[in-house]
Amino acid sequence: MDRDALPKKPAELRALVRTGEWDTTTEGLAPGFVQANLAIVPKDLAFDFLLFCQRNSQPCPVLEVLEPGAYEPRETAPGADIRTDVPRYRIYEHGELVDEVTDISDRWQDDFVSFLLGCSFSFESAMLAAGIPLRHLQAGNDVPVYVTNRETTAAGAFSGPLVVSMRPIHHTQVVRAVQTTSRFPGVHGAPVHIGDPREIGITDLDDPQWGARTDVRDGEVPVFWACGVTPQAVALASKPPLMITHAAGHMFLTDLQDAHLAVL
Amino acid sequence: MDRDALPKKPAELRALVRTGEWDTTTEGLAPGFVQANLAIVPKDLAFDFLLFCQRNSQPCPVLEVLEPGAYEPRETAPGADIRTDVPRYRIYEHGELVDEVTDISDRWQDDFVSFLLGCSFSFESAMLAAGIPLRHLQAGNDVPVYVTNRETTAAGAFSGPLVVSMRPIHHTQVVRAVQTTSRFPGVHGAPVHIGDPREIGITDLDDPQWGARTDVRDGEVPVFWACGVTPQAVALASKPPLMITHAAGHMFLTDLQDAHLAVL
Repeated sequence: MDRDALPKKPAELRALVRTGEWDTTTEGLAPGFVQANLAIVPKDLAFDFLLFCQRNSQPCPVLEVLEPGAYEPRETAPGADIRTDVPRYRIYEHGELVDEVTDISDRWQDDFVSFLLGCSFSFESAMLAAGIPLRHLQAGNDVPVYVTNRETTAAGAFSGPLVVSMRPIHHTQVVRAVQTTSRFPGVHGAPVHIGDPREIGITDLDDPQWGARTDVRDGEVPVFWACGVTPQAVALASKPPLMITHAAGHMFLTDLQDAHLAVL
Repeated sequence: MDRDALPKKPAELRALVRTGEWDTTTEGLAPGFVQANLAIVPKDLAFDFLLFCQRNSQPCPVLEVLEPGAYEPRETAPGADIRTDVPRYRIYEHGELVDEVTDISDRWQDDFVSFLLGCSFSFESAMLAAGIPLRHLQAGNDVPVYVTNRETTAAGAFSGPLVVSMRPIHHTQVVRAVQTTSRFPGVHGAPVHIGDPREIGITDLDDPQWGARTDVRDGEVPVFWACGVTPQAVALASKPPLMITHAAGHMFLTDLQDAHLAVL
């Protein structure tokens, strides 16, 4: 299906995802609406995972948590079905990827607890609207992502390093970038570090662990934000018997508008 | 013990609370430091209660949640002991108050999960610092508190109405009051309503359910904030077999400074 022919409303897009007519990335779809990361864990891990998110709200901003067994995200997308409305799911057993599927209805368990977490797409929209260019988008690349030497705050079974994304910002716009993203704590919020990457244990900016290398040019400062890779990486490192997530870039489209997440 | 002779540091005050030398209200103690509401529930209710707080962050702003069985609040007051460092505790069984004590060490269970929630003391400090007078403080009264017709978002066993506090604000300072409290989402944040109390189901401002009646004078507007009574009222309404809270006004003193809770 042609991207340009797609509807703009999240509910209409979710219907196409549900029937399998759209099973690829959601970047750029439903502009102005919040896209969410998905993580599903069995109930016996849900308290620890929710506590981990609460203690680490920059990398793990909770948009909605569904009741055990529930699959309709009543707050962020009434009428949607979390089992069918994500383009691609990844199934992990004991921390290992065992399958990638477009529907998890036949694997659903009554004790599954689904977490929808904020995603940087919303927060990048806010920066673009504030007149801050983002090079990785201009280049059509994924944002570069790094593991830092900063530990998240552990919770129960879950612990591990903070993972960050980096965007080069011109020194005249760094303050504006802090202000703009601070207004969106629901999608990672303010930067966690500005400037020398070595201060947070990144020795080589040209060698990201995920995403594509991005130039930092004269007059630009590397600015680092907490990244939504953190909760998945941390959760999988604890090797839960079963965990289901979206596939990278294949997000859940909510009915929330980006603007609704702004504080002040 | 004389209030004026008390130390100013939270850790020193907690030591006096621990030994029983201070067992009365904490209002005005350790100025500039965050005081917290306490709620303890057994582990089997903890996920639902944490989810309730996550879904209702204005009435239930989470400062820290301790691991099951843990009694040291490592994030907000390292070295403290949640079993002894609150001046007065209330023990509830099946929603009924059964005891008020100054120490819960002998009642501690390995499955207890302790929640520290933000309290309006911090947020009132911010308003005073911004030059917004607060009449109930001037009068030496408790803030008036009302049950509204707005429902909280239910989570598992927990549901019930939103409870609010009211402060009369001069119309020239209403915008400033919104701005100032918006900076402190960790302690209830922005108002939930400004103006006509009937819009949120309050028929008689002169008849608060808790606290003292407060004048609203010419040129003043009643402004309503989500209140920390909400989580206790909602939790107790679900009649958990066992729940322990602080006694009203007898808060847990953290080492966090009010200023650290500010966003922007």
